[in-house]
Amino acid sequence: MNSQSKIRVGVLGATGAVGQRFVQMLQGHPWFEISALCASQRNVGKRYVDACNWLLRGDMPDPLRGCVLQEMAPGIDCQLVFSALPGGPARSIEAELAAAGYIVCSNASAYRYEPDVPLLIPEVNPEHVGLIDAQRRQRGWQGFIVTNPNCSTTHLVSALHPLHEAFGVEKVFVVTMQAVSGAGYPGVPSMDVIDNVIPFIDAEEEKMERREPQKLLGRFDGRGVQLADFVVSAHCNRVPVRNSHLAAISVAFARRPGLEDARQVWAEYDPLPQRLGLPSAPRPAILYRAETDRPQPRMDRLSGSIPGMTTVVGRLRADPLFHMKFLALGHNTIRGAAGGSLLNAEFLVSQGYLKAERPRRALYRFSP
Amino acid sequence: MNSQSKIRVGVLGATGAVGQRFVQMLQGHPWFEISALCASQRNVGKRYVDACNWLLRGDMPDPLRGCVLQEMAPGIDCQLVFSALPGGPARSIEAELAAAGYIVCSNASAYRYEPDVPLLIPEVNPEHVGLIDAQRRQRGWQGFIVTNPNCSTTHLVSALHPLHEAFGVEKVFVVTMQAVSGAGYPGVPSMDVIDNVIPFIDAEEEKMERREPQKLLGRFDGRGVQLADFVVSAHCNRVPVRNSHLAAISVAFARRPGLEDARQVWAEYDPLPQRLGLPSAPRPAILYRAETDRPQPRMDRLSGSIPGMTTVVGRLRADPLFHMKFLALGHNTIRGAAGGSLLNAEFLVSQGYLKAERPRRALYRFSP
Amino acid sequence: MNSQSKIRVGVLGATGAVGQRFVQMLQGHPWFEISALCASQRNVGKRYVDACNWLLRGDMPDPLRGCVLQEMAPGIDCQLVFSALPGGPARSIEAELAAAGYIVCSNASAYRYEPDVPLLIPEVNPEHVGLIDAQRRQRGWQGFIVTNPNCSTTHLVSALHPLHEAFGVEKVFVVTMQAVSGAGYPGVPSMDVIDNVIPFIDAEEEKMERREPQKLLGRFDGRGVQLADFVVSAHCNRVPVRNSHLAAISVAFARRPGLEDARQVWAEYDPLPQRLGLPSAPRPAILYRAETDRPQPRMDRLSGSIPGMTTVVGRLRADPLFHMKFLALGHNTIRGAAGGSLLNAEFLVSQGYLKAERPRRALYRFSP
Amino acid sequence: MNSQSKIRVGVLGATGAVGQRFVQMLQGHPWFEISALCASQRNVGKRYVDACNWLLRGDMPDPLRGCVLQEMAPGIDCQLVFSALPGGPARSIEAELAAAGYIVCSNASAYRYEPDVPLLIPEVNPEHVGLIDAQRRQRGWQGFIVTNPNCSTTHLVSALHPLHEAFGVEKVFVVTMQAVSGAGYPGVPSMDVIDNVIPFIDAEEEKMERREPQKLLGRFDGRGVQLADFVVSAHCNRVPVRNSHLAAISVAFARRPGLEDARQVWAEYDPLPQRLGLPSAPRPAILYRAETDRPQPRMDRLSGSIPGMTTVVGRLRADPLFHMKFLALGHNTIRGAAGGSLLNAEFLVSQGYLKAERPRRALYRFSP
Repeated sequence: MNSQSKIRVGVLGATGAVGQRFVQMLQGHPWFEISALCASQRNVGKRYVDACNWLLRGDMPDPLRGCVLQEMAPGIDCQLVFSALPGGPARSIEAELAAAGYIVCSNASAYRYEPDVPLLIPEVNPEHVGLIDAQRRQRGWQGFIVTNPNCSTTHLVSALHPLHEAFGVEKVFVVTMQAVSGAGYPGVPSMDVIDNVIPFIDAEEEKMERREPQKLLGRFDGRGVQLADFVVSAHCNRVPVRNSHLAAISVAFARRPGLEDARQVWAEYDPLPQRLGLPSAPRPAILYRAETDRPQPRMDRLSGSIPGMTTVVGRLRADPLFHMKFLALGHNTIRGAAGGSLLNAEFLVSQGYLKAERPRRALYRFSP
Repeated sequence: MNSQSKIRVGVLGATGAVGQRFVQMLQGHPWFEISALCASQRNVGKRYVDACNWLLRGDMPDPLRGCVLQEMAPGIDCQLVFSALPGGPARSIEAELAAAGYIVCSNASAYRYEPDVPLLIPEVNPEHVGLIDAQRRQRGWQGFIVTNPNCSTTHLVSALHPLHEAFGVEKVFVVTMQAVSGAGYPGVPSMDVIDNVIPFIDAEEEKMERREPQKLLGRFDGRGVQLADFVVSAHCNRVPVRNSHLAAISVAFARRPGLEDARQVWAEYDPLPQRLGLPSAPRPAILYRAETDRPQPRMDRLSGSIPGMTTVVGRLRADPLFHMKFLALGHNTIRGAAGGSLLNAEFLVSQGYLKAERPRRALYRFSP
Repeated sequence: MNSQSKIRVGVLGATGAVGQRFVQMLQGHPWFEISALCASQRNVGKRYVDACNWLLRGDMPDPLRGCVLQEMAPGIDCQLVFSALPGGPARSIEAELAAAGYIVCSNASAYRYEPDVPLLIPEVNPEHVGLIDAQRRQRGWQGFIVTNPNCSTTHLVSALHPLHEAFGVEKVFVVTMQAVSGAGYPGVPSMDVIDNVIPFIDAEEEKMERREPQKLLGRFDGRGVQLADFVVSAHCNRVPVRNSHLAAISVAFARRPGLEDARQVWAEYDPLPQRLGLPSAPRPAILYRAETDRPQPRMDRLSGSIPGMTTVVGRLRADPLFHMKFLALGHNTIRGAAGGSLLNAEFLVSQGYLKAERPRRALYRFSP
Repeated sequence: MNSQSKIRVGVLGATGAVGQRFVQMLQGHPWFEISALCASQRNVGKRYVDACNWLLRGDMPDPLRGCVLQEMAPGIDCQLVFSALPGGPARSIEAELAAAGYIVCSNASAYRYEPDVPLLIPEVNPEHVGLIDAQRRQRGWQGFIVTNPNCSTTHLVSALHPLHEAFGVEKVFVVTMQAVSGAGYPGVPSMDVIDNVIPFIDAEEEKMERREPQKLLGRFDGRGVQLADFVVSAHCNRVPVRNSHLAAISVAFARRPGLEDARQVWAEYDPLPQRLGLPSAPRPAILYRAETDRPQPRMDRLSGSIPGMTTVVGRLRADPLFHMKFLALGHNTIRGAAGGSLLNAEFLVSQGYLKAERPRRALYRFSP
């Protein structure tokens, strides 16, 4: 696929922390190329280098420094937009763009809980793209919106998915220790978190308990998603870690597995995006670490063939109350945000929702 | 009580992190005065100031700087010893001293799980001192050993105790976020914990799940302790916090309380050490914080009238799986270690195990 | 001095980080009592507890929780206002209040560099209050403004002052490692400072090099301040420390002292506020620590009889380029901000600028 | 160069923090292959995976997991050894190996200050390899030792080198803010450094002031090195940063340059190892960052074509006392330790000290 045949994409909210991750991950992407960076009204017309305080290691990509920021409204020259907007503005902007024919891959929470909008992790519930037809029909939109879950939910559900398939998840206790980057930028004041833990993240426990896991692991019946029927109790905490969320998880199943069974299910997990060879589908999708004290944020957050896209699990052991307990860790601004949207977009391409040739070889690499 | 009438006490392992806390907390104590500092063989004969790398804020107490470190063996000039020894050496040294007539208030784990040794939190299970008679009789000891629990267990059980009395604890799910000082000194290497969480603490989960809470909340029937019958699942983690352990806790009870009932139980909690006016018994014993994001380690670890002795709870809310969930926080090297032993010793005095006049007024204050 | 005879004071900017320190330090003050809390327009009329996110350890003082926030304009019921305003608003508000007869003890930079406004550290340049008469006369103000220096300058100059008196400072190299609280709240984003150093603080080097030390150590000649004649080179850095600024300092003098001479000068330092027994004048004013690795922020920032008011120095040694080098450390939001203003106010009382009886005993203590 | 033609190398002290960096950096190296891992007596005979607590991100390289650790004595099957030994053991072991014919590229301080041992940064003083002949002759060794400087000195001198060539360095004031990894593992206890700075590093200031910079920038006159004649004053501090040392530097020169002159000297710097295309010679050798607040440890420590090998400078500005001031930052365990030794070894190959064909293309990449 040469440059002419790449799919032109835009980034909404390009100056923020997640927007920058989109920009970073799209560098050298084999299928997509950035044709538009969009920002809020006060930055429209400015050059990207002037409006954006680049937060990621390494420099702002050279070709984009001079890129002039555009309005977030129909007229953007691209087929697909990645949305790094906060929930408020996302509501109207994403709808307007979807109505006008754009495909919107959104990291925002605005549409996640709508019955006709896929909340998608391609490894977990690829068949939920079946909602798209109804969404367009009911709303009269030419385009459509696909969302990815909250950063904490993403890795919880990714780790649970193959276990759920095999043994039927019934009850989940989860306590998260989440990185400060999950709050965006400037986000958590350093005065609040040095030598401290903040045991509260606004609206996070609701998302993890009731709003996202049951939809993600629900069954698409041709018309809608039947929510999965299990109960989650979540305690969410902010810890002095820069990137990646760690979760301590205890689970009860419909059919109690042996620990070795669970380990094997993870080891043999080979979901669709990996089999399709999507450029951002990491190998392995789930990595089990056998050490007594892993995964750890700093050591394991960039694991896997696509750094930051793999969910890392470990410390699987019997649970005195439920059946087993373990840890799950994943990168919150890569797989848990921009990378999740990006993989969704790749999956949509693979399913024919966008017209584009498949590249012969996926050469995509970025280093975070 | 003038100086002549104070009880002479020794500190075993006086150069270590917990030993230093004992020394700090005993400064100006109304009932006790340090008459001996003891250390391992390689430091015997040295002056305290030369052998000890003082780790606490403020300076080593002046009068002790020149104190010559003694052997940990019978012959120490005191009635009672506080033990800050590691589990290994504690086993033989504490036995030898108890046999020789000393009262040993130990923070070590060596004797915690012996059926005839009290594992004591005076607020929680003061009647367990009833084990002492059997201990002396069976072992033929002139003195005896009383232990306090592990730092993590201490605050979990302190928070649960009045709820257990009122509603009967049946199931407990707990995830800890523990301070690095819990590992002693030098303890956790900074390379391991900067920008990181270490999701493993050796033998900690076993202590919290099976070894300590059931004994602490057990019933003394005149001869021994009938273990309480509830199940705990624990995940223990080390976070980049200097002092105090935070725990996220979900609980199921025999009789489901309303949230307001639980809050009231904590508010009305007025256990024995507080009623006795023991010098290190904090007021309140349990502090409920009503903010949405408290307790926090840095903000709340020194709460209460005796800084570091109070257990702080908060974020009480309904739990989707069990009955309710909340947070508990406490200082690990004060109430969870040296302060726990000290309060045990005060309780023993109040119960007549040591001969000493009661002071007229408890003026004891230290600032950590 | 009973409550009736205390001096009524107000706090401008009471909801911010420095404003809260003023409130905390004024609790139980023997001479002052808070009669007004003032805030920016959007908070006027709200209760303090509703408008203020309390950032300090411990709780907002109970008696002030219900206090209704007032406008920062003449009409406030008090003799003296402490200003915790940012530089911008301070310019007009402080002038308006001084004109109307209030004494303004300001931590803001707005008037620090005006030739007729004292930039005051009572230990260092008490005679600079002589500027007040000219200030009132020239500006036609009924009241007046007195300022305290920037947090970094304060401890640098405090440490240098007795050396300057004795040996004449000529050249100063200083590299600061400053706490995040110096940037206020929310201030430094945690994403910027975890596992990092930020080697830039806006306008800080200019203040330390040219604007403040020469005025502070200048001579009041009856009409104005003759700036001291020495050169400072400053590098300012933000480090992941919550409170207190540490400075590495090399100095050349007019008369080269031996190291022992310098140590003695510090040891014998007994400046005016200490001799006057001002309630917030710490003893010692300067503390020399003899260890090889002190002062350290966490260990030493609350040193002295009034925690956070003492400047701590250490590691005095010969310098290969200049004459000697050493470290200085001080608390930035206590002595370097609110405490500096408070001591200035006490000094003004002692000099008769406010009418108030001297209390018989200074009982003032706070614990930060 | 196929595998048969690679140079076989050993690593002394392979289980430690620096030893692991050697192992990591030698993976996939185009010229070298590890044929021996050596450790202290108590680990000899164990498998690498059993004796070594792997500290670096990513996993221990698979092919080395089963490698049996050997004695550090003649008999190792290799031409060259990299030494990650502490100073004490290095003294005798390195001499014994050099005597027996091995080339020793040492990160230890044991031989750095010997007049006949090169203290080598190939960009700075490549001609110092001329000392090797004398070393072998005088000592009667078949092999020889080449050392690299202390981690702090490395980046200071790297940044100064082109300025010294152009303008003649005369006086240097330097304050370091050094990462905890510089103290090895376990190294700095977390209790000492959370929310703190430790303003002392044993023997570090001596190395930076007197022992290393003058030798590094000295002139080899055919027989020995004439020490450069400039004076350094150093203050060394440990900060809560995991990797990389940041230095605030002020310099006076023989010929005062304009700031633009200095920037240009850095921009045009193209030293020998880069021109030779040595696999570990980074491009650029020195990177100037123009932002007001860079370099920063977390953002810039992995800059350059070979991550961690480039010295990053910034904030160049006029100095009120000397001529100019700036910041320098570099990775302490890569360029400042293992990477420094590795580049030395590559330079020795390029100069014919080891027999090996030059590879056609340098494909060497590692990701730290």
